[in-house]
Amino acid sequence: MDSSSADLIPLFEPRGVAVIGASHDPSKLGYALARNLMTCGYSGAIHLVNARGGILFEQHLYSSILQVPDPVDLAVLLIPAPGVPEVLRQCGKRGVQVAVIASSGFRELGPEGAALEAEILQIGRQNKLRLLGPNCIGMVDTHYPLDITFLPPPSPLPGELAFLSHSGAICAAIIDWTRTQGFGFSRLISLGNQVDLNETDMLAPVAAEPATRVITLYLESLPDGRRFVQEAGKITRQKPVVALKVGRFASGQRAAASHTGALAGQESAYDAAFRRAGVVRAMTTEQLFDWARALAWCPLPTGRGMAVLTNAGGPGVTAADALEANGLCLADLQSETITQLSQILPPAASLHNPVDMLAGATPEIYAECLSLLLADQAVHGVLVILPPPPMHPAEAVAQALIPVIHSATKPVLVALMGEKLIQSAASQLRAAHIPEYRFPERTAAALAALHQRAVMLSQTEGPPIYSVQRIIAQTLLVNAPAGFLSAELACSLLEAYGLPISPVRLAQNAEEAAEFAQELGFPAVLKVASPDILHKSDVGGVLLNLIDAQVVRQGFESITASARYHLPQAFIQGVHVQRMLPAGQEVILGALQDPQFGPLVMFGSGGVEVEALKDVAFALAPLTPADADYLLDQTWAGRKLNGFRNLPPADRKTVLETLFRLSQLALDFPQLAEIEINPLHVLPAGHGAFALDVRIRKT
Amino acid sequence: MDSSSADLIPLFEPRGVAVIGASHDPSKLGYALARNLMTCGYSGAIHLVNARGGILFEQHLYSSILQVPDPVDLAVLLIPAPGVPEVLRQCGKRGVQVAVIASSGFRELGPEGAALEAEILQIGRQNKLRLLGPNCIGMVDTHYPLDITFLPPPSPLPGELAFLSHSGAICAAIIDWTRTQGFGFSRLISLGNQVDLNETDMLAPVAAEPATRVITLYLESLPDGRRFVQEAGKITRQKPVVALKVGRFASGQRAAASHTGALAGQESAYDAAFRRAGVVRAMTTEQLFDWARALAWCPLPTGRGMAVLTNAGGPGVTAADALEANGLCLADLQSETITQLSQILPPAASLHNPVDMLAGATPEIYAECLSLLLADQAVHGVLVILPPPPMHPAEAVAQALIPVIHSATKPVLVALMGEKLIQSAASQLRAAHIPEYRFPERTAAALAALHQRAVMLSQTEGPPIYSVQRIIAQTLLVNAPAGFLSAELACSLLEAYGLPISPVRLAQNAEEAAEFAQELGFPAVLKVASPDILHKSDVGGVLLNLIDAQVVRQGFESITASARYHLPQAFIQGVHVQRMLPAGQEVILGALQDPQFGPLVMFGSGGVEVEALKDVAFALAPLTPADADYLLDQTWAGRKLNGFRNLPPADRKTVLETLFRLSQLALDFPQLAEIEINPLHVLPAGHGAFALDVRIRKT
Repeated sequence: MDSSSADLIPLFEPRGVAVIGASHDPSKLGYALARNLMTCGYSGAIHLVNARGGILFEQHLYSSILQVPDPVDLAVLLIPAPGVPEVLRQCGKRGVQVAVIASSGFRELGPEGAALEAEILQIGRQNKLRLLGPNCIGMVDTHYPLDITFLPPPSPLPGELAFLSHSGAICAAIIDWTRTQGFGFSRLISLGNQVDLNETDMLAPVAAEPATRVITLYLESLPDGRRFVQEAGKITRQKPVVALKVGRFASGQRAAASHTGALAGQESAYDAAFRRAGVVRAMTTEQLFDWARALAWCPLPTGRGMAVLTNAGGPGVTAADALEANGLCLADLQSETITQLSQILPPAASLHNPVDMLAGATPEIYAECLSLLLADQAVHGVLVILPPPPMHPAEAVAQALIPVIHSATKPVLVALMGEKLIQSAASQLRAAHIPEYRFPERTAAALAALHQRAVMLSQTEGPPIYSVQRIIAQTLLVNAPAGFLSAELACSLLEAYGLPISPVRLAQNAEEAAEFAQELGFPAVLKVASPDILHKSDVGGVLLNLIDAQVVRQGFESITASARYHLPQAFIQGVHVQRMLPAGQEVILGALQDPQFGPLVMFGSGGVEVEALKDVAFALAPLTPADADYLLDQTWAGRKLNGFRNLPPADRKTVLETLFRLSQLALDFPQLAEIEINPLHVLPAGHGAFALDVRIRKT
Repeated sequence: MDSSSADLIPLFEPRGVAVIGASHDPSKLGYALARNLMTCGYSGAIHLVNARGGILFEQHLYSSILQVPDPVDLAVLLIPAPGVPEVLRQCGKRGVQVAVIASSGFRELGPEGAALEAEILQIGRQNKLRLLGPNCIGMVDTHYPLDITFLPPPSPLPGELAFLSHSGAICAAIIDWTRTQGFGFSRLISLGNQVDLNETDMLAPVAAEPATRVITLYLESLPDGRRFVQEAGKITRQKPVVALKVGRFASGQRAAASHTGALAGQESAYDAAFRRAGVVRAMTTEQLFDWARALAWCPLPTGRGMAVLTNAGGPGVTAADALEANGLCLADLQSETITQLSQILPPAASLHNPVDMLAGATPEIYAECLSLLLADQAVHGVLVILPPPPMHPAEAVAQALIPVIHSATKPVLVALMGEKLIQSAASQLRAAHIPEYRFPERTAAALAALHQRAVMLSQTEGPPIYSVQRIIAQTLLVNAPAGFLSAELACSLLEAYGLPISPVRLAQNAEEAAEFAQELGFPAVLKVASPDILHKSDVGGVLLNLIDAQVVRQGFESITASARYHLPQAFIQGVHVQRMLPAGQEVILGALQDPQFGPLVMFGSGGVEVEALKDVAFALAPLTPADADYLLDQTWAGRKLNGFRNLPPADRKTVLETLFRLSQLALDFPQLAEIEINPLHVLPAGHGAFALDVRIRKT
């Protein structure tokens, strides 16, 4: 169910809140919930409800939501699950617009709980009541402010990060952990079982809140992946989104008949989806918040070249390693910078990147060197290393650095090493919104996240448009039975979409094969034609480089005999005849319909070892130029197209166009479950590329 | 210069220490050094020396080391570098046995400083004075105790970790950082410029100290790598060693004429060296100490199957992901365990691994479930997840878990999530020597480090011994000129070592080629023979599958013409003739002399794309059975030998034997700089393997 941001105003800015299940007993969560709401600074009306009545926090307890006076647009329920439906009906009657169901006892308990969940969704819809949860720990807004959790105090610190979580336990742990990490939250929302409102519903309203500078997500799944990609894609152009998706290994492989299907694990789809949406994907909980902080507080770098400023050699080398490991590089400093550094640093200092000022570096030297590095055009960001300095207190260095960093238009991140001796420096940097991390490795990874976002924002070109014969394709497909299309139909479909194929003829006897070969030109290639044979070369079903009609006749007999020998039960339609192309490079292209995210395009190394080598990459259709470049850059098959050793550069341009057209085909016809061109035979640059074999499965 | 542990007794257990350069000025490091020594609890004699005399800490300052009374066997120098040589001579005269030179101003300043360093080494040797440093921050022993650093107080906490560091700044930062991390050190040694004593010298004496349970290393280089591997290899059988080696990316590629050389970056050599020595290699500073703590405190797992015990779903999934990502797996719980779990957990709990007890789990339930998991034979270790529990304080859970963990013979690591709400639990676990980490990801990685050590300790088989004709090989090599050996000589050398080759003949004209082909049998293979042509197929210099004498004659002409066309300046000796073998798999085997670590053996995918695919692995010679298995398991080329799709299983046994024999050859003849068999043609199992081409470079 779609939601507009307006629907959620009662959740984020309620005029009145009712706590249903408020408790006198301080050991109960219903007590903690009432306490948090009473003490959080919320300025609207607070109503406490408990069936047994009484007084709590000097306030009258209503025995039912029906008795609660105006204003009340948000209700938080912390009552046993079986009582929830009735109370929700009452909420609807009373004019409540959003209900947060903190109670557990629903889907997570099995079929009975799931039925109860279906019932409350029904009640919500009938009563125009939006539901958050059940089985969640509620929400905190530190700026409005509003705290409807039952977590132990204190509330999280106010800050710029929003956090949406599928896991309540992670929410609780993160709130507690960040108390000592020097950053805070704008909003934290625990989504629970998401019977109604899910992570995607929350994106727009959370992004719209001015205090939020970065949205962080802890995700366990994305059942409505397409809508997520669409919504997140709009938001990431304005505000960064960082996601940790867990369950990477649990997801496993999907059942599939093609290489593309076998290779496209769910994780490839998530990767492609996050990339398409511009979401930065963190791989650990620590990275999620390390990167979010940098994205909230720092300008973005305009290139990969970074400078390292240090007062000791060891951490400088560690930082250089970590930059390279994260896909960044050490900037080559301009000679002018080096000259200027030499004028302020001792002779033994290292003037080349990493710049090692030596142990005697004063706060002033730190600041001056940082200014010089920031002024260097080759430098797109700086990683400053600050161990407990042997001579000068770290806080003096931090103090000297802060104004330089604040006036910079390039990101500066600090590896602040130590603990007690750097506490005061850490506090200063945190107050100044300058990200600091204990070790150079984490610092470099955060710089890389900034670079990743900068690259994403620079990619603005949409999918290219090629003219295709969609209606012809439609006509071809309309009567085709489900399952694998015949080779002839598959080729016609490719032709309609301007996909380059090498013409193929189906010969039913040796003489016909010889005739077709004559017509298409020698040398010829023969391949067994059978709907039952997936991997033709495995059964001796392929012959290459046949030079005349006589050899083609013999080839027909040998191929059919060999296929029959290996797979006696296979239905053999005959042999496909093609002209053999000049030497070229062979790649695989594929597309499949991902149930969560829609059409997914694959590119990589083909051949019999395609599944073992795993030299493939995925992107969501429709492909943009950046996506297509990514597919080629990520794979050895793609990089090799630029030429390698004795391989001449191949026709990369045609490969790109083929990818775009394939993406269009997959997008236009969702009934094509899998499309696989293996191989696409790519001739040297300017000479085109030809699909030698194609398999298409229709649902 | 080798050192025995006895030499270093005056460093670790001095009867008297002189501080040369003790200062009255509290802002000077010479003051801090004297203060640390005076207050550290050291029970021997302390002598303070300052040329200007006076009183410091109520103690008379001697104006020279010569005036210092007995006992004095250790001197710490913190005086300007130019004065160091004279003071060292005096130290020698006075009977000091070890001098720690904290002063900087040596090699790190350039050639002049390097000369000064050479001078002090000379003085040390003449006076039987061992030197630590210069340019170091000294040493701390928390148990003896002894603190001869100039770092700000307090000293590091006593503990079980020894730390040897090439970087003083890292030492200082680590000491400060660990103050809040809940673990301490036995000894910390800053090695500085290592003019005399280096990391390898320190290994045995540090390992011999009873308080040390794990040795951690921060390394920037290992110039005497062979000795390190030898010494560390002895120690790791007794006590774990964990190393962080920085400068990974700076090291770059070595100049080389072979694929083996091009692919063997310094990092491959370090990896191979650490693996041979049984050293666990950490990739970040955080991992170094995360893993050391686990190794110090936990029993080792006897398998890869781990259980996850959690009270919330989200962190459980995160932990499962992290286990898989670290090469471990989720154990399949025995049905008995599941039955027993079901008797104590609520119906909605997840009884299968990860075991989710749900949010209500009491401390008793945590302890009981942990006991059940530990009793399961399929479980080799447990990752317990403890977020701030919604109902029960984390410290109560910790308290209940500790006795169970202490009585276990399997490792239990705790992901203790949060900060303030888990402080007391953290303190309890730390006091009980149970490793706890903030997030499941770090916890899983530490479990994997334990598993890595368990695997290492289980590998006890030494290199197999094959009979080789060493004297024949010696004779063959003695007169061979430096550079690439002739194909004939290379083949003879392989034959002497029992390495399987396909016989090869050098034909100087077409007629000779035809005769040789007749002799060896058809079909034949021809390859251009030239010392100037490294990649024969790049210049049209290879022809396969030639079926009779006439085709061989034509082939001779076409190969030599093509090679001349591509490389007109190449000296072409003729054409090598071999018999063409039946279909098989092709792999590359190589060996080279690493300047730091000695002979290094490579295995992987050969062919023209060998350098691009990088499907290779390295191990140090002599290879053990575990090394050889590692080389095959790590590479697709090796895994494929077990059979893949239509490829039958290949003769893996012969490949292993070939690796062992190659390793022996490289070990026996260090003058063979590079040996490369590319390809080794491996026939189906039981049919052997044959080197089709070999290149050997002699220095």
